[in-house]
Amino acid sequence: MFTVIGERLNSSRPSILRAVVDKNGAFIGEEARKQEAAGATHIEVNVGSVAENEASDLAWVMDIVQRAVDLPLCIDSPNPKVLEDALVLVNKPPIVNSISLEKNRLKPMLSFLSGANCGVVALCMDDSGIPKTARDVVERAGRLIHILEDAGIASERIYVDPLIQPIATDVTKGAMALDAVRRIRESHPSVHIVCGLSNISFGMPQRHAVNRTFLSLLMSAGMDAVILDPLAEKMIPVLKTTWMLLGNDPYCREFLKTARSGAIN
Amino acid sequence: MFTVIGERLNSSRPSILRAVVDKNGAFIGEEARKQEAAGATHIEVNVGSVAENEASDLAWVMDIVQRAVDLPLCIDSPNPKVLEDALVLVNKPPIVNSISLEKNRLKPMLSFLSGANCGVVALCMDDSGIPKTARDVVERAGRLIHILEDAGIASERIYVDPLIQPIATDVTKGAMALDAVRRIRESHPSVHIVCGLSNISFGMPQRHAVNRTFLSLLMSAGMDAVILDPLAEKMIPVLKTTWMLLGNDPYCREFLKTARSGAIN
Repeated sequence: MFTVIGERLNSSRPSILRAVVDKNGAFIGEEARKQEAAGATHIEVNVGSVAENEASDLAWVMDIVQRAVDLPLCIDSPNPKVLEDALVLVNKPPIVNSISLEKNRLKPMLSFLSGANCGVVALCMDDSGIPKTARDVVERAGRLIHILEDAGIASERIYVDPLIQPIATDVTKGAMALDAVRRIRESHPSVHIVCGLSNISFGMPQRHAVNRTFLSLLMSAGMDAVILDPLAEKMIPVLKTTWMLLGNDPYCREFLKTARSGAIN
Repeated sequence: MFTVIGERLNSSRPSILRAVVDKNGAFIGEEARKQEAAGATHIEVNVGSVAENEASDLAWVMDIVQRAVDLPLCIDSPNPKVLEDALVLVNKPPIVNSISLEKNRLKPMLSFLSGANCGVVALCMDDSGIPKTARDVVERAGRLIHILEDAGIASERIYVDPLIQPIATDVTKGAMALDAVRRIRESHPSVHIVCGLSNISFGMPQRHAVNRTFLSLLMSAGMDAVILDPLAEKMIPVLKTTWMLLGNDPYCREFLKTARSGAIN
């Protein structure tokens, strides 16, 4: 089972910001339905960029999305209190995004996570900034997993995020992420590993093409959850083709279904 | 440096067979030039399916190709004597395809390979048939490399071929090949690993889409040479995107050049 978190309902996108400000529920609901139809298993909701009303805007968006689709949510906020309060509003166990090793995140998140019924994205970020090597990432992942398990959060609830960095800034950032994913998968076979896919192509041309090739490579390295735009051209078809090539699609059934629909080309 | 062996000049393709029979040199030369323009580093020549005149047909095709392009050849024949004789006709050190552990191939190939100036494809095939597990492949690869090195053939001249098998017959065949490539790369860092890419999608719909996703996965596992159709849609763009994502393209220069040409989409 591969987790696909549809990232479109994020108020950093101008059309979503406008819909949230205008309380255009039809638009929000349609965005959720389109992502479900394309193959999302979770719908991310993030209204962080209209922060003065974040809690009430988030509650509104969550309500719309849960009426529109049957999928669990991935609730994304920089504010631990907003995440904690949002947990009482869900119909299905969500994923909360995120905890990290940063002081202002770690304690406030831990205070409510252990008793909650949810998954959690564990960002490999600490107060010294973003990791510089795969070894850094793996070390931070290990510390986070240890802290979370100590707090009673089972590994199956943990979605380690190795923090994909743009390849435009340094051509080794792709290989670094792949190496980190491989090593986290080896040391921690039962945690989930999730990536924010599109970060790799920030500042590059033909971002969708870069993203979908990187998706295949990350899956092969051991990533089992991803945050992406499921409507991006050929993204889900490439995901299904890769899933088959890695041996996870009995009788190639899902691939053949997708091919017959005309989506693979 | 990644080796791309263009596979189009093979008489199992009806258009090539006709051109060989008709001695249509213009067509053969154009096929070679198109593959070079698309990014091939070697041009494969195979006239095995018109076997009664194989030696003379092969000599004719080799001459045409070497006048058309400056690339080295990959000479493919089931007949060791044909391969040996073809070696005196080349302008640049070629790759010969292939030696294997099969009795009727191993000795006749070894008899001329050690003194020759060429690379050699080492097929993981023996007289018991095709390998059934990744462990089988790795064990055969080890035996072949040992025999070839004992005969004075340096590892840099060896192109181990793990034998890609169709995923349509067994959905684990993709994962098996990836596992075998990873393990051969680990145990034998200085040999080349080459795959006949399109075997994976035999019997499947949307073969090019399957092939190019598998190309990315094989490159990530450690394959550094491939036999493919460089004119297949998006194949070389996916190869260049993968090469960049694996950290091998300084300043993303090759990727950006390809993107600017409009080939990546």
